[in-house]
Amino acid sequence: MCGIFGVRGHPDAAAVTQLGLYSLQHRGQESAGIAALDVAGQPHAVKRMGLVSEGLLEDEAELLRGGALAIGHTRYSTAGSSTLENAQPVLARSRGGHIALAHNGNLTNATELRFELEEAGAIFQSTMDSEAIVHRIARSNARTPEARVAEALQGVEGAYCLLIVIGETLVAARDPRGWRPLVMGDLNGAVVFASESCALDIVGARYVRDVEPGEVVAVDAEGVRSAFPLPRLESRKCVFEHVYFARPDSRIFGGSVDRARRALGRQLARECPAPGADLVFSVPDSSNSAALGYAEEAGISYELALIRNHYVGRTFIQPSQGDRDSKVRVKYNAVREVLEGRSVVMVDDSIVRGTTTRGLVAMVRAAGAREVHMRVSSAPITGPCYYGIDTPNREELIAANLSLEEIAREIGVDTLGYLSLDGMLASVPTGPEGFCHACFSGDYPTPPPTDPDKLRFGCGC
Amino acid sequence: MCGIFGVRGHPDAAAVTQLGLYSLQHRGQESAGIAALDVAGQPHAVKRMGLVSEGLLEDEAELLRGGALAIGHTRYSTAGSSTLENAQPVLARSRGGHIALAHNGNLTNATELRFELEEAGAIFQSTMDSEAIVHRIARSNARTPEARVAEALQGVEGAYCLLIVIGETLVAARDPRGWRPLVMGDLNGAVVFASESCALDIVGARYVRDVEPGEVVAVDAEGVRSAFPLPRLESRKCVFEHVYFARPDSRIFGGSVDRARRALGRQLARECPAPGADLVFSVPDSSNSAALGYAEEAGISYELALIRNHYVGRTFIQPSQGDRDSKVRVKYNAVREVLEGRSVVMVDDSIVRGTTTRGLVAMVRAAGAREVHMRVSSAPITGPCYYGIDTPNREELIAANLSLEEIAREIGVDTLGYLSLDGMLASVPTGPEGFCHACFSGDYPTPPPTDPDKLRFGCGC
Amino acid sequence: MCGIFGVRGHPDAAAVTQLGLYSLQHRGQESAGIAALDVAGQPHAVKRMGLVSEGLLEDEAELLRGGALAIGHTRYSTAGSSTLENAQPVLARSRGGHIALAHNGNLTNATELRFELEEAGAIFQSTMDSEAIVHRIARSNARTPEARVAEALQGVEGAYCLLIVIGETLVAARDPRGWRPLVMGDLNGAVVFASESCALDIVGARYVRDVEPGEVVAVDAEGVRSAFPLPRLESRKCVFEHVYFARPDSRIFGGSVDRARRALGRQLARECPAPGADLVFSVPDSSNSAALGYAEEAGISYELALIRNHYVGRTFIQPSQGDRDSKVRVKYNAVREVLEGRSVVMVDDSIVRGTTTRGLVAMVRAAGAREVHMRVSSAPITGPCYYGIDTPNREELIAANLSLEEIAREIGVDTLGYLSLDGMLASVPTGPEGFCHACFSGDYPTPPPTDPDKLRFGCGC
Amino acid sequence: MCGIFGVRGHPDAAAVTQLGLYSLQHRGQESAGIAALDVAGQPHAVKRMGLVSEGLLEDEAELLRGGALAIGHTRYSTAGSSTLENAQPVLARSRGGHIALAHNGNLTNATELRFELEEAGAIFQSTMDSEAIVHRIARSNARTPEARVAEALQGVEGAYCLLIVIGETLVAARDPRGWRPLVMGDLNGAVVFASESCALDIVGARYVRDVEPGEVVAVDAEGVRSAFPLPRLESRKCVFEHVYFARPDSRIFGGSVDRARRALGRQLARECPAPGADLVFSVPDSSNSAALGYAEEAGISYELALIRNHYVGRTFIQPSQGDRDSKVRVKYNAVREVLEGRSVVMVDDSIVRGTTTRGLVAMVRAAGAREVHMRVSSAPITGPCYYGIDTPNREELIAANLSLEEIAREIGVDTLGYLSLDGMLASVPTGPEGFCHACFSGDYPTPPPTDPDKLRFGCGC
Ligand SMILES: Nc1ncnc2c1ncn2[C@@H]1O[C@H](COP(=O)(O)OP(=O)(O)O)[C@@H](O)[C@H]1O
Ligand SMILES: Nc1ncnc2c1ncn2[C@@H]1O[C@H](COP(=O)(O)OP(=O)(O)O)[C@@H](O)[C@H]1O
Ligand SMILES: Nc1ncnc2c1ncn2[C@@H]1O[C@H](COP(=O)(O)OP(=O)(O)O)[C@@H](O)[C@H]1O
Ligand SMILES: Nc1ncnc2c1ncn2[C@@H]1O[C@H](COP(=O)(O)OP(=O)(O)O)[C@@H](O)[C@H]1O
Ligand code: SF4
Ligand code: SF4
Ligand code: SF4
Ligand code: SF4
Ligand SMILES: [Mg+2]
Ligand SMILES: [Mg+2]
Ligand SMILES: [Mg+2]
Ligand SMILES: [Mg+2]
Repeated sequence: MCGIFGVRGHPDAAAVTQLGLYSLQHRGQESAGIAALDVAGQPHAVKRMGLVSEGLLEDEAELLRGGALAIGHTRYSTAGSSTLENAQPVLARSRGGHIALAHNGNLTNATELRFELEEAGAIFQSTMDSEAIVHRIARSNARTPEARVAEALQGVEGAYCLLIVIGETLVAARDPRGWRPLVMGDLNGAVVFASESCALDIVGARYVRDVEPGEVVAVDAEGVRSAFPLPRLESRKCVFEHVYFARPDSRIFGGSVDRARRALGRQLARECPAPGADLVFSVPDSSNSAALGYAEEAGISYELALIRNHYVGRTFIQPSQGDRDSKVRVKYNAVREVLEGRSVVMVDDSIVRGTTTRGLVAMVRAAGAREVHMRVSSAPITGPCYYGIDTPNREELIAANLSLEEIAREIGVDTLGYLSLDGMLASVPTGPEGFCHACFSGDYPTPPPTDPDKLRFGCGC
Repeated sequence: MCGIFGVRGHPDAAAVTQLGLYSLQHRGQESAGIAALDVAGQPHAVKRMGLVSEGLLEDEAELLRGGALAIGHTRYSTAGSSTLENAQPVLARSRGGHIALAHNGNLTNATELRFELEEAGAIFQSTMDSEAIVHRIARSNARTPEARVAEALQGVEGAYCLLIVIGETLVAARDPRGWRPLVMGDLNGAVVFASESCALDIVGARYVRDVEPGEVVAVDAEGVRSAFPLPRLESRKCVFEHVYFARPDSRIFGGSVDRARRALGRQLARECPAPGADLVFSVPDSSNSAALGYAEEAGISYELALIRNHYVGRTFIQPSQGDRDSKVRVKYNAVREVLEGRSVVMVDDSIVRGTTTRGLVAMVRAAGAREVHMRVSSAPITGPCYYGIDTPNREELIAANLSLEEIAREIGVDTLGYLSLDGMLASVPTGPEGFCHACFSGDYPTPPPTDPDKLRFGCGC
Repeated sequence: MCGIFGVRGHPDAAAVTQLGLYSLQHRGQESAGIAALDVAGQPHAVKRMGLVSEGLLEDEAELLRGGALAIGHTRYSTAGSSTLENAQPVLARSRGGHIALAHNGNLTNATELRFELEEAGAIFQSTMDSEAIVHRIARSNARTPEARVAEALQGVEGAYCLLIVIGETLVAARDPRGWRPLVMGDLNGAVVFASESCALDIVGARYVRDVEPGEVVAVDAEGVRSAFPLPRLESRKCVFEHVYFARPDSRIFGGSVDRARRALGRQLARECPAPGADLVFSVPDSSNSAALGYAEEAGISYELALIRNHYVGRTFIQPSQGDRDSKVRVKYNAVREVLEGRSVVMVDDSIVRGTTTRGLVAMVRAAGAREVHMRVSSAPITGPCYYGIDTPNREELIAANLSLEEIAREIGVDTLGYLSLDGMLASVPTGPEGFCHACFSGDYPTPPPTDPDKLRFGCGC
Repeated sequence: MCGIFGVRGHPDAAAVTQLGLYSLQHRGQESAGIAALDVAGQPHAVKRMGLVSEGLLEDEAELLRGGALAIGHTRYSTAGSSTLENAQPVLARSRGGHIALAHNGNLTNATELRFELEEAGAIFQSTMDSEAIVHRIARSNARTPEARVAEALQGVEGAYCLLIVIGETLVAARDPRGWRPLVMGDLNGAVVFASESCALDIVGARYVRDVEPGEVVAVDAEGVRSAFPLPRLESRKCVFEHVYFARPDSRIFGGSVDRARRALGRQLARECPAPGADLVFSVPDSSNSAALGYAEEAGISYELALIRNHYVGRTFIQPSQGDRDSKVRVKYNAVREVLEGRSVVMVDDSIVRGTTTRGLVAMVRAAGAREVHMRVSSAPITGPCYYGIDTPNREELIAANLSLEEIAREIGVDTLGYLSLDGMLASVPTGPEGFCHACFSGDYPTPPPTDPDKLRFGCGC
């Protein structure tokens, strides 16, 4: 997955972008980049492996700072394609001048697009599908930046939120299905775009509205222009953004993530109660809101039974060997005084492979819990995502391979309850219609990509 | 402050120590170090500025790994003395062989000890008071390692938990007042010591007991020996460890930190209710338990209104200028949907200077809160700490200079309530007696150090 | 300038390439890169700013090692375009599979090539003219790799030595003028190409022959194929390679650089004697051979009067301010005992701006030299190079702006003698015909590039 | 070995020291350090593993810059003790204030000094014998800084040049034998000390005189005071400094190193002629002067047959395996055109283990040399050095174990000639008396140290 951020009209656009990316770090920790125009209008890009904070702008500060237009990107990606070549923004020079592009999402016809472009003589210097969009923009003969983007996006299928610099224009675009979120804000007159509203908050911008599915917005010295040049389709906002991916302090898809998770938790309590349980706790921090909702609805007290180490991710520490569950202990610890002798409800937002969950259950039992009732605030994940989330192949998804009872046994819980698909969709703001739930339901809004394992072309994120 | 960890009898003592330090990172982020015996019994030390995880053991791995005895240290310290010379463990060679020492605490007669040693010809290669203890051990003629430590500690005043390697013996010592916590554990027969029990958990060790105030424990091939060679004094365990410093998943001073904070929060609700408030929230994560206790006792619902960025501290990002409250925004964000139009109770564990609190209150109001009722789960901090916590001088402590009303106005809240001294002491496990509360009450168990500003000699942490 | 190296048929091609690049470091210190096929035939590229040795292959070792085909590049370039984007090899994927390319030289119709490609929809992700060649190869429909290269090079003007990986074929190409050197060697059956023969020596390869001007050589599993698909032109080998650029232990253009410099020095002695001088010394190390030749021919004794610091270039040390000549002192020191009271001949290979020379003369005088007779083993440089050497603009070239007497006065010598153009050309192996001497004579073999300041498109080097 | 530098009375003493150390880099590449007084007179030290240039002063610049007094140190040392703890200068605080010390040399009674100090209760935080001197200064009750140093040095045996900061006084001291060089200079009124005069040159200081064996010089605000408080002994200047260690542009022991090497080469030609040889060449760069002297005296032409890679030492490149002589090829390359078919004289300054020489001879033969006559401009090394040079144990010294014929066969030469002991001593300035030649002659001026393998305590230089 990725996070994107852009601003036009601020006297230090690159610095604002760096700050914005910092609050989108949870959307991608592998690489970070900023492309900005300098005071003379020349484009520059800086990219680094690792976190935004690790000195992204330090060296090139002088180069990037002072310009009024910048876009940025944080990227997570599968191991194979983990190189600087695949960091974004992509910056290219073409007939029509420079093009810089940051992409969140994944194209489903990337193979075809690439093939077509290669046949026309194009070369690719990364394995990202995003590069195909840059080529298409470069080849467009349309007159305005937004028209070039619109033309380029005809025939592009799948998920994308794009921030594009063409000349001195900033263009934002969201695919007709609207899989990924994109919000628009105002920072003392400067126009800001971001994957999530928490990035508006950190820079002190005011939330204005969402960029709509199928919308292309252009911002230049004249002001803001909007158009809907793409075929209208029913929206398929990713329900998993509400379930797990977005930050709880964000507003996406026109609703609050925290409120979504609270509702998911309450619905979970209704669908899968745990009568007789002494307490409810979350796997911090992504399921805090859901666990609170569960506790509230079930009338069971909410406890802080697991502590998440504040330094997670800054470390490559390997636990001492020979100890199956030590990996989980590096990230979490249980509070014995809370758990000892109790029958407990452990709430998590989702279960992917099940290995972390199994380790956590073992930890909770070792801390004295008498009974462990696992409750999951989403439906079972039974298929991969083709729209930008890096879920593993079906073979690794525990719920794609085992029955409820088998999963419960495998992870070592007394009882296990997942939220129903309907319950999940009914709980998120503006649901139940208009959401993608393919990885839960198998109901994919597109045919699978030609090259679903992404091994050849990778993903745009 | 500092965290200390030691293990004797494990086949990869240095690796275990690194893992243990990782969970004591909250006690000191400035530098980290490990001293260990290699397989041949030779001592080596590695020290780095920065976090445990940033490659502490990587380079010297070959050197340190494989030995059975290691101690480690994480250090926080005031800016002035922030150099590698002041990182611990101290490793020295003396008449009696090598001595390695890791210290948590602060000596109150450091100036005098140092003067005395310098008069006797000693040289100091750091500004840490801990170095004086090493000199004194080196000068002791006592026969056993523990007797040398005991002799060295006669006349040493103030706060210390020590882990010391002398030859192949690991000695643990805690001052007679017992200001700082020190626990003892068992890892498949290896003896482990740590500042907090969370470090036992991460390495998979079992909690055995606390090292007692005034106790000196020696561990060698023969086994474990305990003695109480120091003058007995009434204990003065630091209440602030329960209030803020220790991790909630730790057991210190014979009680659970989480339980302590829950009780503090409940007592706070009793002493300073907030009738009519719609919800309670914490300043994450240190006041989560207290806020939950408050909510429980007050019967007001608990909410997650502030989100703490997961990447805090990994960054040196500076917010864009000209914006008073932007510093707080880099670390926290408010959830508008939770706060809008509500009368809220904001619980924090303590207020030191008040600047962060003021920024948070402004953020909470900007997110729409109608009324803000600040509740603090400790008494007002009115004086500095001489026993190992880096609180600022009296001039910077807001509660030392302003009245309750003035503080409320300064931080911008509608009402402000602190827990009473008695309420605080009654809430912590094994309280109200036996605790230090000097920074809250002015009741210092020792005369102030000769050189209280620590500028000349620094602190042993 | 740049150095290039490639090998096909060796079991650890990337490691061999790294070693080869290490001996081509003098041709470019700004960035270094290697592109290699892995054991599965997949291409990967690693690039770094800085020297070859600074860990180029360390991280990605696992990725690159073990494959049989690799090419590499060391790059020096002007400040403006000093970014990783401009490091080589370029690696791209196209209709016909992957293309990796390393280029030494500079195209003179880069602007036109780029314009044409952009008009056809191409995008450029660097400012290097080399990228245009990759595009042209990608667009070629020819059947064999070498035919694609040959087709791509039609219409490409200026200087290039190229090493190109297409599929599993390694193609080497040299422009019809042959400005830059390219040699071919044999390493136990593996075919090796390198800018200079010193790179064959370091890897233990045997020199086979030069790649000829206008030649395209293809190496695949079938063996080696050669062709001359480009229009034949009179050769214009860069005389400055012999004068300064190549390493003295190299064989280039079919002759020894050391022998060339010795002959240049001898001819210089004949043309510009220094009767009455006590000794001859070189500005180490590039003019060592020439100075020795001068001494030999003139019958004056050769001395080591200047010492070049071995750690030059590893440092960014700035001399203390306020001292005009201190910059030179960081790199060189004079030997007073050699110079004191003597009339000396100082031999250097060339004078560009004259600032270093002025500093050296001052240093030599300060060490007691009575008379300083400067002798330069090349003709005066009066114009820029458009063929791959980073000489400055005419305005900065001292010999383009001052008369001989003025230069002598400016640099502070008693007498100054340059080698004549004819003397220079007659001294180099296979001369006087067939060499470029444009920067000395103004006789440019091509029209100047449209964009001679290279500001827009940079150079392929 | 080590290099030391100090300055008092310059407005940016630390920057001057860094520059001076840069030209003493050949004396030690393992670690570098500077201790300086800040503008307020407070001492600070910075130390780093690696080269001077790699950012020594960058971070702490603000701390160190601006003060008038600084000393510095470059250190080479045996692998075992390669840690930052052993980097110098040592900075300590004692009864009498701060003491900073930089040491070049090696004490021969380090074990005894250390034992005595440990018995008196001292602790050691490094394995350097230099630390013992700091302790002894700290314990001295003498009144002036120089008297404290003089008192401390009574009973200290072996080799030392010391630069010591005590309060605001800079003290320089050289042992009575004068094994290591130490020069004194003047930089616009500031007093400068350095191991070699090349460090005076780089900072622009004027050579004043050598610090004499047994002399203690003190510099403070009052001026310069000199004394000879140590027992007078016959001088034993290290002849190997002239042979190999010092830089040829330095003046040490009152004579020019270049002139010494020239004379050594000429004498070698007289003692071991090579009738019939076609040419003479050096193993660059340390034997350049000697080879030139040989050529001159023998009337054989001097050639540049070996080229030394300019980037040596900046690299950790490992040649591809399976190839015995590839290690030598990373550092040197032969010039075939010079060597082919010729009978050659190869001059080197010394042979230690013989492995590099064997590789070079093989390289020279592979380049076509018909006959190889090895000539060494020093006597055979048959024993270790106890006075500060890191020669290996006797077992590894080729000349301690093999006869002349055996060595010739082992390294693969046609003939081999070493300079005689007498010839060597007669050639160096101020010789033949007053020099140490123990490693050549076995005539050690002191008993061997108690702990000659230095394994326990390491060496002070
Ligand atoms: N401070 C927070 N409180 C609650 N949830 C959070 C917080 N920060 C991040 N999250 C949620 O947790 C998810 C994962 O965050 P991340 O920092 O990567 O932690 P983890 O290591 O648990 O995956 C985010 O996508 C977001 O939904
Ligand atoms: N995961 C956690 N949950 C709750 N409290 C925590 C957690 N981690 C640390 N703490 C508490 O917060 C205090 C400060 O932790 P730290 O990581 O330094 O965060 P902060 O930036 O808030 O100071 C710790 O001393 C501990 O009491
Ligand atoms: N060891 C050597 N001996 C003689 N000449 C050399 C040597 N190494 C490099 N050169 C020559 O000197 C030129 C410049 O080399 P470089 O290492 O960049 O040094 P400089 O700093 O003097 O420019 C090279 O292009 C080559 O011709
Ligand atoms: N530029 C130079 N010319 C001649 N001799 C030098 C030069 N620089 C250093 N030396 C001599 O060579 C010795 C070794 O120098 P160093 O740079 O360590 O090279 P090496 O790798 O050959 O050991 C020095 O002690 C000095 O005597
Ligand atoms: S498949 Fe799942 S993760 Fe992917 S977009 Fe649809 S709901 Fe979201
Ligand atoms: S003064 Fe305060 S912080 Fe210090 S030990 Fe006492 S209670 Fe703890
Ligand atoms: S212009 Fe000069 S430097 Fe350039 S190729 Fe011609 S001779 Fe060489
Ligand atoms: S033993 Fe050899 S190297 Fe050591 S000081 Fe004496 S002459 Fe020099
Ligand atoms: Mg989670
Ligand atoms: Mg807090
Ligand atoms: Mg030169
Ligand atoms: Mg040598």
